[in-house]
Amino acid sequence: MPEASVSMDKIVSLAKRRGFIFQSSEVYGGQGGAWDYGPLGVELKNNLKRAWWRANVLQRPDMVGLDAAILMHPRTWEASGHVGHFTDPMIDCRSCKHRFRADHLVSGVAPTAKGGTVRFSVDRGTEAQVLEGLRAAAKKAGSSIDEAEVRVAALHGPDAHLVGPSTNAPCPTCGEVALTEPRMFNLMFKTFVGPVEEAAAQVYLRPETAQGIFVNFANVVTSMRRKLPFGIAQIGKAFRNEITPGNFTFRSREFEQMEIEFFCKPGTDDEWHQRWMADRMAWYTNLGIDPSRLRLRPHDPDELAHYAKGTSDIEYFFPMGWSELEGVANRTDYDLKQHIEFSGQSLTYFDDETSEHIVPYVIEPSAGADRAALAFLLDAYHEEEVPAGEGKTETRVVLKFHPDVAPVKVAVLPLSRNEKLTPTAQAVYASLLKGLRDCVVQYDDSQSIGRRYRRQDEIGTPYCVTVDFETVESDQAVTLRDRDSMTQERVAIADLVPALRQKLGWDG
Amino acid sequence: MPEASVSMDKIVSLAKRRGFIFQSSEVYGGQGGAWDYGPLGVELKNNLKRAWWRANVLQRPDMVGLDAAILMHPRTWEASGHVGHFTDPMIDCRSCKHRFRADHLVSGVAPTAKGGTVRFSVDRGTEAQVLEGLRAAAKKAGSSIDEAEVRVAALHGPDAHLVGPSTNAPCPTCGEVALTEPRMFNLMFKTFVGPVEEAAAQVYLRPETAQGIFVNFANVVTSMRRKLPFGIAQIGKAFRNEITPGNFTFRSREFEQMEIEFFCKPGTDDEWHQRWMADRMAWYTNLGIDPSRLRLRPHDPDELAHYAKGTSDIEYFFPMGWSELEGVANRTDYDLKQHIEFSGQSLTYFDDETSEHIVPYVIEPSAGADRAALAFLLDAYHEEEVPAGEGKTETRVVLKFHPDVAPVKVAVLPLSRNEKLTPTAQAVYASLLKGLRDCVVQYDDSQSIGRRYRRQDEIGTPYCVTVDFETVESDQAVTLRDRDSMTQERVAIADLVPALRQKLGWDG
Repeated sequence: MPEASVSMDKIVSLAKRRGFIFQSSEVYGGQGGAWDYGPLGVELKNNLKRAWWRANVLQRPDMVGLDAAILMHPRTWEASGHVGHFTDPMIDCRSCKHRFRADHLVSGVAPTAKGGTVRFSVDRGTEAQVLEGLRAAAKKAGSSIDEAEVRVAALHGPDAHLVGPSTNAPCPTCGEVALTEPRMFNLMFKTFVGPVEEAAAQVYLRPETAQGIFVNFANVVTSMRRKLPFGIAQIGKAFRNEITPGNFTFRSREFEQMEIEFFCKPGTDDEWHQRWMADRMAWYTNLGIDPSRLRLRPHDPDELAHYAKGTSDIEYFFPMGWSELEGVANRTDYDLKQHIEFSGQSLTYFDDETSEHIVPYVIEPSAGADRAALAFLLDAYHEEEVPAGEGKTETRVVLKFHPDVAPVKVAVLPLSRNEKLTPTAQAVYASLLKGLRDCVVQYDDSQSIGRRYRRQDEIGTPYCVTVDFETVESDQAVTLRDRDSMTQERVAIADLVPALRQKLGWDG
Repeated sequence: MPEASVSMDKIVSLAKRRGFIFQSSEVYGGQGGAWDYGPLGVELKNNLKRAWWRANVLQRPDMVGLDAAILMHPRTWEASGHVGHFTDPMIDCRSCKHRFRADHLVSGVAPTAKGGTVRFSVDRGTEAQVLEGLRAAAKKAGSSIDEAEVRVAALHGPDAHLVGPSTNAPCPTCGEVALTEPRMFNLMFKTFVGPVEEAAAQVYLRPETAQGIFVNFANVVTSMRRKLPFGIAQIGKAFRNEITPGNFTFRSREFEQMEIEFFCKPGTDDEWHQRWMADRMAWYTNLGIDPSRLRLRPHDPDELAHYAKGTSDIEYFFPMGWSELEGVANRTDYDLKQHIEFSGQSLTYFDDETSEHIVPYVIEPSAGADRAALAFLLDAYHEEEVPAGEGKTETRVVLKFHPDVAPVKVAVLPLSRNEKLTPTAQAVYASLLKGLRDCVVQYDDSQSIGRRYRRQDEIGTPYCVTVDFETVESDQAVTLRDRDSMTQERVAIADLVPALRQKLGWDG
């Protein structure tokens, strides 16, 4: 087992304190399952989206982009199967009114410290929920129970099974035996177009971006004169009415997807599937994700979607354990065939070589932008002992973001707020704003230089530029400090933009 | 009056044919008021969003970004006034079931060619709707009427007034006197969070991004250690259940906003309002919008929102006439005070200089990304007579996009598909993909070089790079063709990346 880089509590706290992620509508008590990206968070997420677009659209001759609407024709979701099948089983507690995903609930019998046993239930959605269930059971038993042992049993043991009234399982929250039978609940949000709330005008907020690609397949082939194999990439919001959102931004009701549908000839699909799995794994590690916290897990036959010939999840070792970052599926010709059937339109492809109309196969690497942002934030987190002068050490928190990912690329820090230093420091700042296109450069002259270095470390700024008295009095050069090694070098102001461009990896 | 660059029909057709904009869910007959951006459209819109972010966030020390959720706590919209007041008056025709915005309907009496008169109604939403109303009236009168004269009367004449049953005005579509009284209709889309459709779980799709900024004001001040004056910028989707979407992407139900809330001390607000109006006008013209099709129009006192001290619209001369691209409003302290009242939270700012808690004033430049994309697309359109050899000329369609706006920056075109040329052309292409970060480079070797130039002109590619036999046989140089002047120059392959960077304006 790998080690988590940091606890979720610590990262939630840092994310709020430093302007990465806030609870949505916090002043009104929050909107469950929705999150707001603050000034650093929006830059982090934009950097990831841009890195994804760069790797998957701009630098590949076989890919183009798309940006389809969130509000699609409702027939789309009949064709895709979402109206019929995009459901989660839901269980309510009649006593405390809490609601659970049935497939997240497990129940078992645990030994107590007094030598008896107690039936417990846990919601394995989050770490905190597992502990809550165990404590409810212990309270009911009037005795402590071995949490570690039960936890393993609850999550993995042969005794674990779905709860429901027939099992007499207690509620994981209040401990009462008052759970309903599971009932199916469609996860699509619906709304009404036009002033009258009638079924004819009912539409859904898209639960995935993928279908916007499939319905535009013919438009893209024609307008872009595309030949197989080629792919269409899209970044955009999707919405799922999750019963139990949780684990910070990991499972939310509103989220952003980065999806590719790669169209290829039947028979070449297995090879493309392999290639895309490798490409997508490399994307994460190239941008600095620790390979020990990344794995590719093929779906078991029983978890495979009905349309998929094969799917592998790219998983990251989050604080709550291995969890999905991205799925890479071979969707075969399922989706295009469904849309051909439901729309009556021709969504086939004319193969010049064989003079046949074919329905392409599709490989789908489908990633979550919010999950990626969370994984990169977690993975970047380090606490290090560093010298603090006089032979002492102190702990610094440093986010070791890859330069492409870091929300702030450079900070300009005059040694102190001083009328001799300020004009030069401001001039250096202005030259970086102009010379480093499309990135955030900060200027900070408050408090001691040591504190400012720590502040920049904590948000992961790769380079700090310090303007000191030597700069203005003698050498017209600045100190360039490297975040990770903390080494400093002297660079002439005239050379600063090219030096930073090169260090940031912008010159290829 | 300026001249429109092109008719809407022509641009709609070009947009579909060349992969800029498709009707949403077209295979299912379309989803009204929603549009999909194709491979070139997504690049165009991304370029505009990035140019806006660059000018308003990255290059300004007094601005930060934000990305708040679409699903906000419903109290937000009570505080903002949207639950109570965000309504349009709607009129239905009992006969033909068409629906109109009452504030778009006007009625009058027109002379007919036979010497009589006829009462007419028109929907002034779009040009086509105005004509439809006039034709319905002429049909009813059994006589032609002077369209030009009536049109002016309908839109601007003193005889024009709102229609309704009391006026005995006919329906603009079917001509029957069967219109209902106007009734108010809230434009917010609503949906339900959680499985039960009860009022407690009802939320809205945000009708504007602005409120996501106001509710995060305190979070941003604290996490980013911000002092007045400073602004928060946000780009994101918003939704309005428009009764009559129309004019292509101009008025749609799902759209993307680019909004700034600039917080300043009361008393400095008028000056900041002036500055932002000038800044925002300059943004459009700096990116190439023809100044003769751009104007700043102050709101009349009777169209001013109740919270606004003053608003000016930045208008573009669209094919349907002057229409809003962006509003720049002085919202005073209205929004923050409303959220203070409704949330009970402190959203004040502590002024170090006076040691007082104050509620800042707010200047809001609020632009539409889709309207900007449409305006830039229209404005770029040119038809030109160019030499076609043998003393003849031909018409070329060319989109004269600013390089920052153009969806494709460079196209690599080997003179012909030839085994001698292809390896070098592919090598040049690969070097541009690597050397020109974050932009689209195309490779095209099908059909004649002349046709390929025209294709690139029609999508607005600023530079074409041609690889010919001289390239491979003698000079290792390529021809660089300028879209607008159509002049060609010879550039060594080794110098191509820096030459293009410089021409594209990336070196400051």
